[in-house]
Amino acid sequence: MSFDVLQDKIRAMKNPTVFGLDPRLEQIPPHILAQAFESHGETLSGAAQALLEFNKGLIDALCDIVPAVKPQAAYYERLGWRGMEVLERTITYAKGKGMFTIADIKRGDIGTTAQAYSDGWLGGVQVGKQICKTFDADCVTLNGYMGSDSINPFLDTCRAEDKCVFVLVKTSNPSSGDLQDLVAGDRVVYTVMGDLTQRLGKGTEGKYGFTCAGAVVGATYPSDLRQLRRRLEQTFFLVPGYGAQGGTAEDVQYAFNKYGHGAIINASRSIMCAWQKTGGDGTDYRQAARDAAIAMREEIKQFVTVV
Amino acid sequence: MSFDVLQDKIRAMKNPTVFGLDPRLEQIPPHILAQAFESHGETLSGAAQALLEFNKGLIDALCDIVPAVKPQAAYYERLGWRGMEVLERTITYAKGKGMFTIADIKRGDIGTTAQAYSDGWLGGVQVGKQICKTFDADCVTLNGYMGSDSINPFLDTCRAEDKCVFVLVKTSNPSSGDLQDLVAGDRVVYTVMGDLTQRLGKGTEGKYGFTCAGAVVGATYPSDLRQLRRRLEQTFFLVPGYGAQGGTAEDVQYAFNKYGHGAIINASRSIMCAWQKTGGDGTDYRQAARDAAIAMREEIKQFVTVV
Repeated sequence: MSFDVLQDKIRAMKNPTVFGLDPRLEQIPPHILAQAFESHGETLSGAAQALLEFNKGLIDALCDIVPAVKPQAAYYERLGWRGMEVLERTITYAKGKGMFTIADIKRGDIGTTAQAYSDGWLGGVQVGKQICKTFDADCVTLNGYMGSDSINPFLDTCRAEDKCVFVLVKTSNPSSGDLQDLVAGDRVVYTVMGDLTQRLGKGTEGKYGFTCAGAVVGATYPSDLRQLRRRLEQTFFLVPGYGAQGGTAEDVQYAFNKYGHGAIINASRSIMCAWQKTGGDGTDYRQAARDAAIAMREEIKQFVTVV
Repeated sequence: MSFDVLQDKIRAMKNPTVFGLDPRLEQIPPHILAQAFESHGETLSGAAQALLEFNKGLIDALCDIVPAVKPQAAYYERLGWRGMEVLERTITYAKGKGMFTIADIKRGDIGTTAQAYSDGWLGGVQVGKQICKTFDADCVTLNGYMGSDSINPFLDTCRAEDKCVFVLVKTSNPSSGDLQDLVAGDRVVYTVMGDLTQRLGKGTEGKYGFTCAGAVVGATYPSDLRQLRRRLEQTFFLVPGYGAQGGTAEDVQYAFNKYGHGAIINASRSIMCAWQKTGGDGTDYRQAARDAAIAMREEIKQFVTVV
């Protein structure tokens, strides 16, 4: 099952991190923007072109040291269908460079609607006699507020296509507790969601023992992270909140099991925008991103050994 | 504020319903598919073209009797960026025909990411010196599992652009209770979400007394619907689950206040696929949809009088 593929890549690179591709225009180096606007005008097409160039450069710079990439759909949808085309092309490009691709879409809908999302993002869509692939990521993020109806259709696709998902369990943002921390009997809402996720994934365990239904658990609540790691032994974790949001390498160590398996730590801004801290004009953005990714890998290595 | 616009349209047409545009290819009449495939081949472009033609026909047939349309993003994303282009064009077309447009996206993310979604779906995006509009719907649906951080950025856009949102509170699907019905102290999770929604919208009440933060409350749990209507007096309801999912006109009456205000009832398949029940070849799909929409309006009229 597909978390095997991710865990294998992590072990090969000794690097349990993923870099988030969430670019806003003001985070793209000026020379890339200028060139795109020169070709396409100051238009949505120009903006989309700049995004794609920036992404390709980052993927080139990181693909041999970082195992996975996580584009955040919002920053592509923001540019309308032109942005979505860039997202499709970014996923294809990253896969071509051997990276594991996690589409951060946080979709949550039911029945045939969930199936439609699953077709688009993981599976494929039947058109006449052929199956067409569209976004075709290796993995997506999901929101389970609507219950198992909103997760099962994706897991069907995962079983058929050897793919996987991460369901939001305990998120890293300040207001995550509004709902997730509510006490319900002897559990809290996020443990209910975590238990549901692990239960729905049952029977899909791969060679490392993880099901195809992973969980998003933020770095910013390390005691919750530690408790969830113990509770959900068969659940792979995607851990946001490292770096800019305040999570540290010491905090994220609790996401891993005793083999250093079962989790991947995300960083977006600290890698993507590293060039803004070098004092340069942005032409060095690839090297700056690479340096930041290596620094992150080394920080985590102080607390986590991937066997 | 923007629910005023919707309530005005509902009053003018004496019809508190919205039709969902959730088309799968097998629900599109054969003559439309054949023509699109003839022009574009059996490709994603062909499928997208068929979707757009079908949607335009339905909008033409319904725009003078149904006040609002709700395209479900999943069925467009399923076709990749070509589908998203159709979704943009469908929204533009429906607005051109005077319809209120609700993009059923159920997005839920935080901070700048929520802002990016909000820019794309409701506001606009700054490219160079200009603001570009992309999806530009009147209203979107949201998932608040991540808490107020995932709702507030949209409300900022609503205030600036006179738009509105519906937050998932109690959904119509069988497994909605997995999370939403958990008992937390003297409330259940869905009432916590409902209370949060109404509280975040405070200060945006329009002439009918509703804030710009509405709620999704399903028709399939009528006692919950009734209780939420009493609890959330300032909250406009979007009510799915009518028809195919089992909700009846008698059930949905509880969504309205004493003036027959404050709710809109969705039907998708029963209108969109009405042609499949006429025994015809689908060339009559417009008339079949119109007949179904009128029948629904009349059913609801037996229980609800819009003042």
